Parts: sequence; structure tokens; C-alpha cells
Amino acid sequence: MELNISESRSRSIRCIVKLGGAAITCKNELEKIHDENLEVVSCQLRQAMMEGSAPSKVIGMDWSKRPGSSEISCDLDDLGDQESSEFSKFVVVHGAGSFGHFQASRSGVHKGGLEKPIVKAGFVATRISVTNLNLEIVRALAREGIPTIGMSPFSCGWSTSKRDVAFADLSTVAKTIDSGFVPVLHGDAVLDNILGCTILSGDVIIRHLADHLKPEYVVFLTDVLGVYDRPPSEPDAVLLKEIAVGEDGSWKVVNPVLEHTDKKVDYSVAAHDTTGGMETKISEAAMIAKLGIDVYIVKAATTHSQRALNGDLRDSVPEDWLGTIFRFSK
Amino acid sequence: MELNISESRSRSIRCIVKLGGAAITCKNELEKIHDENLEVVSCQLRQAMMEGSAPSKVIGMDWSKRPGSSEISCDLDDLGDQESSEFSKFVVVHGAGSFGHFQASRSGVHKGGLEKPIVKAGFVATRISVTNLNLEIVRALAREGIPTIGMSPFSCGWSTSKRDVAFADLSTVAKTIDSGFVPVLHGDAVLDNILGCTILSGDVIIRHLADHLKPEYVVFLTDVLGVYDRPPSEPDAVLLKEIAVGEDGSWKVVNPVLEHTDKKVDYSVAAHDTTGGMETKISEAAMIAKLGIDVYIVKAATTHSQRALNGDLRDSVPEDWLGTIFRFSK
Repeated sequence: MELNISESRSRSIRCIVKLGGAAITCKNELEKIHDENLEVVSCQLRQAMMEGSAPSKVIGMDWSKRPGSSEISCDLDDLGDQESSEFSKFVVVHGAGSFGHFQASRSGVHKGGLEKPIVKAGFVATRISVTNLNLEIVRALAREGIPTIGMSPFSCGWSTSKRDVAFADLSTVAKTIDSGFVPVLHGDAVLDNILGCTILSGDVIIRHLADHLKPEYVVFLTDVLGVYDRPPSEPDAVLLKEIAVGEDGSWKVVNPVLEHTDKKVDYSVAAHDTTGGMETKISEAAMIAKLGIDVYIVKAATTHSQRALNGDLRDSVPEDWLGTIFRFSK
Repeated sequence: MELNISESRSRSIRCIVKLGGAAITCKNELEKIHDENLEVVSCQLRQAMMEGSAPSKVIGMDWSKRPGSSEISCDLDDLGDQESSEFSKFVVVHGAGSFGHFQASRSGVHKGGLEKPIVKAGFVATRISVTNLNLEIVRALAREGIPTIGMSPFSCGWSTSKRDVAFADLSTVAKTIDSGFVPVLHGDAVLDNILGCTILSGDVIIRHLADHLKPEYVVFLTDVLGVYDRPPSEPDAVLLKEIAVGEDGSWKVVNPVLEHTDKKVDYSVAAHDTTGGMETKISEAAMIAKLGIDVYIVKAATTHSQRALNGDLRDSVPEDWLGTIFRFSK
């Protein structure tokens, strides 16, 4: 375990962040971004990427025309003198939330069958909706001075085989990172060599990226504090603070010490995310932790998420930190 | 020449279309789409892709929430019974027009130098602007029932070496076409292995695609009738209807027969497009024609553009057709 941590310290990618669909969009309103959360998340990401270096002037990188204006206003005059900010290397992946969901479920894109007109139309409609969200997230991060580059998995050539990643060209993602940019990928409709097409979820993308880019840690930003032993809406729900993951991918709650150790965590009904729910999230997180990479599941836009993004939890976890950590344990 | 035409008939890609920036955006207004033109162009494209088959009901494929509405309205009820329309294979590439231009020129992205903060910021800002335009064009085509897929050259892994295409993964474009979709690429900011970064123009993308996909013909939709012997605003400007391109890429006006054959066409000052102008367009068109592929330069949203898109000019050119044809001639 010690060796693993020191190894990871020398890796060039610091963190892969998942912006959960439930955290950055309004769940109950179609195609509506949660602007407040997204703004705080963008600001926290910038903080984390600066790694405690002196805050420099934010260079806004979205120079689009604002609605109602006929001109582009951007204060570029002193940009020439500005020194380049050194950001540590992050990759962002976001879910779909209230974008794409209607289009995908109405047409059954995830089940495949591109020869059917409704599936083909739904495929196009889903991609329009999720790329629209991607553009808005890229813009929000760029306004905060983060040099973001939107990258659709479909365009990057990602494809699946019965929903598992069959092909993913990571060279463009790697080159983008090496050039000092932050790639922003997203859950997407993709071609599947068995089904014809399907939905590739952001969580599956994260696992694949973690496996190949070997970041120091992975953060899932969601809309609840972390993983609970039962649906978080229930009064006695207990937040699971630390989960140990074994070499075979099996996992065990180590903090808090649960009274009845034989008690099964009732995560299967705690589905509170739009794609896959908590069960998928736990199994994806466990698979990442199995690689020796810490995974933090934490509520977006809180002091807890800032600490997780900063990497403050790498050595020891403060008592007052709220969230769930998945750690590899031999 | 005969052999060449019959060969091209058996090719699977029928047409690559360039939507010129000047034709689909408002030149004199920043980041403003020319909605009327774009709607007519989308409709003409659909017509051309149906290849004269009976017009079926348009299946709109943009199911996004309309501004001011809280619901998505799409009439999907009879989609289940709808037969799949057979479209012939098209690829669309669009320019930037009044999108991206401000951001790119203000920061000097085309000259490279990603280590400078203003270039890096401009790179991000340019990509935001052109991907925004791409999304709107994909939506316009999808509303017309064309199964479009937006694909950014940057995300597809395209990169340049001193502005020439150094690497372009066409496998994703080919797979997209084979799955029955219409890829929509665009002029983009990309990484350049000498300069750091640059602008890859839509015209250069077209040439590269034509070279590798070997379409039957290529159509450039622009905002003037075609190529003139001098700036089209001049009173005596003559529309060049047919230009013969030799094996060495040299070209000669064959229709109309110019009075003074030694007279040089004054195309260099006829720059009326936002990227590269007419000179680039002529040299790119000549390079495509050299491959044995007919190139039509024609005014968007006219009866002339419809005929060009339909492929009506492949065997013989009607006297009343207005536009410029580049043809290979041994």
C-alpha cells in the first residue's frame, strides 16, 4: 500500500473528476443546468488545480457573445503580460443528468437497434442534448480560467461491445493533457459492435481512463454526502466513510464499524443518480480502487468536495470530513 | 475521363459538401447564424440525399427543449411504424464565418505558441465558438430529418504540421457513415507539431476527406454565384463556368472562352470568404479535381445549389446553371 501511494505521487495525471449529472443539472427539470452548483464546482476545480500556488488573475476563456449583446467583451489588454498559470493535470468527465435522459429512454438507444428509425433518431437527439450540456460545462470551466477542451467519446472513436468499452483512443486525450489543457468528456451515445449502438456512461468512461491514465486519485461529485448503508432519505441511514477494496474487487466497510458485520449494505435501492444509480457507482468505484487509486465520493459544492479535489485526504482523513473513500487494501 | 466517371459511380460516398462560413452565418454580425439560408440548405441537402425517392414524412431528430418551454415536444407516436429512409452517403464540413473568427484573430491561434497565455485562452475560446456553431448546424440538419453527428476534428485526433494535415483518423468518420449517419465536421483549432497549435480550415479538411473517401463529387456552398475573373462586385466581372484542371494541378478556364487567353484571372483580390478567401478555395478545388472528382462552387440556397447537390451536373451541365465547375482533364 505504501509503495502504491508513492508510485502514484510520481504519476503525471493528478486527478480524474466526475461531475455527476445529479449534481450539475436540475433533476426535476428537463435540460436545465444547476448554475449555482456548476459555478462553485468550477471555482473549486480551479483552486484544486492551482495546488496552493498564489492566486493569479482569472483569465476568462469563454469569449462568446453574451445573449442580448452584439459585441464580445473580454478584457484582453493585460493578457500579454500575464504569466502562464501552472495547473496540475486534471481530467473531467460529466454525466448527463436531465440532458439526454429523455431522448435516450424515449427511443431505447441503450438497447441498440440502429436499423429502427426511432433508435436512429433517438441516437441523434441524445447526442445533440449531451453535447449541448458538454458545451455549457466547458464554457463554465473556461469562464473560471480553466483551459478546457470538450471531447465527445463518440468523436474520439470510443465504441463498445455489449456496453463494455471495446475501443477507446486515449492518445488524443493524452496529447490534450500534455499540451496543458483539461479534457472534458461525457456520457455519450456510441456505436456498439454487437448491439449497433448504446449509451456509454460517464462512470464507465472514468474507470477506463483511470485504468490507463493512472491518476493519483478519482473524485465523484454527487448530490448526496456519499454512500449510505440504505437510501439516504431514510432516518437511520448511516454514511459509509471508508470502504476497503480487496484484490479480487470485493469490498468491506471499515469505517464506521457496523454493529452487525453480516448486515448487507442495502445499496441496491439507493439509486439516486440518473444513470446506473448507486450500485453501478459502488462497483465502478471498487474497480478503480482495486487499481490502487483512491476514490472519493462526495457532495458537490461543499467544503468536503474542495478538500477531496485538493487531494487533502491522500495521507489521512480528517474526522470532520464527510464523504466516502474507497481504498485498496491487500 | 470516362473511365474515371464510371469508377466514381461505384464509390460509396456520394458527396462531400462544404457549408461556407459566409453562406450560413451573418458576415457582419458576430456569432450570428443566417437562419434562413441554413434552413433552405438543410432542406436541399435532405432532397439531394433522398435521390428522388418518394418524399417520406420528416422525422425531426432534434428533441431539445425549446427556449421558454419546460417540456420537450416531439411527435414520436407514429415513429414505430415509419420505415427507415434510405439516404445516400454525404459528409458535411462547415466553415466558421462569424464564429471563432474574433477569438482566433484576437489571440493569434493560427500562428501557434501555446505557451503564451493569450494563445492558450484564445485556443479554448475559439473551440467554444466553433463547437457552438457546429451544434447549431447539427440541430438544423437534424430538424430536417438528416441523421447528423457532430464531429470536431480536434476530438477526432486531427493534428497538423505547419498547418498541413499531419494526422487524421478517418476510421471514426468512415464508421459513422457506414452506420447510416452524416458526419458534420468543421474548421477547428488543432494542435500543430511544429507551431504548437493552429487553425485547420474547413477547405483543407474537405481536400483531405476527398482524397481518402473518394466521393463522386464535392460541392462548395458559398455566398456568391461562383468564381469570377475579378472581384464579383466589379461591373464587368465574368462568372467562370468551367475550369479544367491538369494532372500537375494547373488550371485553365474553358467556359466561357476568355477573349484574351493570356489574361490572368485576378482571383487574388476576390477574397470574400472569412478563411483563406477565393485563392485558397481555387487551389483547394483544383487539388480535389486533380483526383478526378468534380467540384462545384455554387451560391447556397438557390436552384443552382440544389442541382449541384443532386448531382444533376455529373453528365452534362445545363446552359442555365450558374456556378463554377472544376473538372479533371488529361
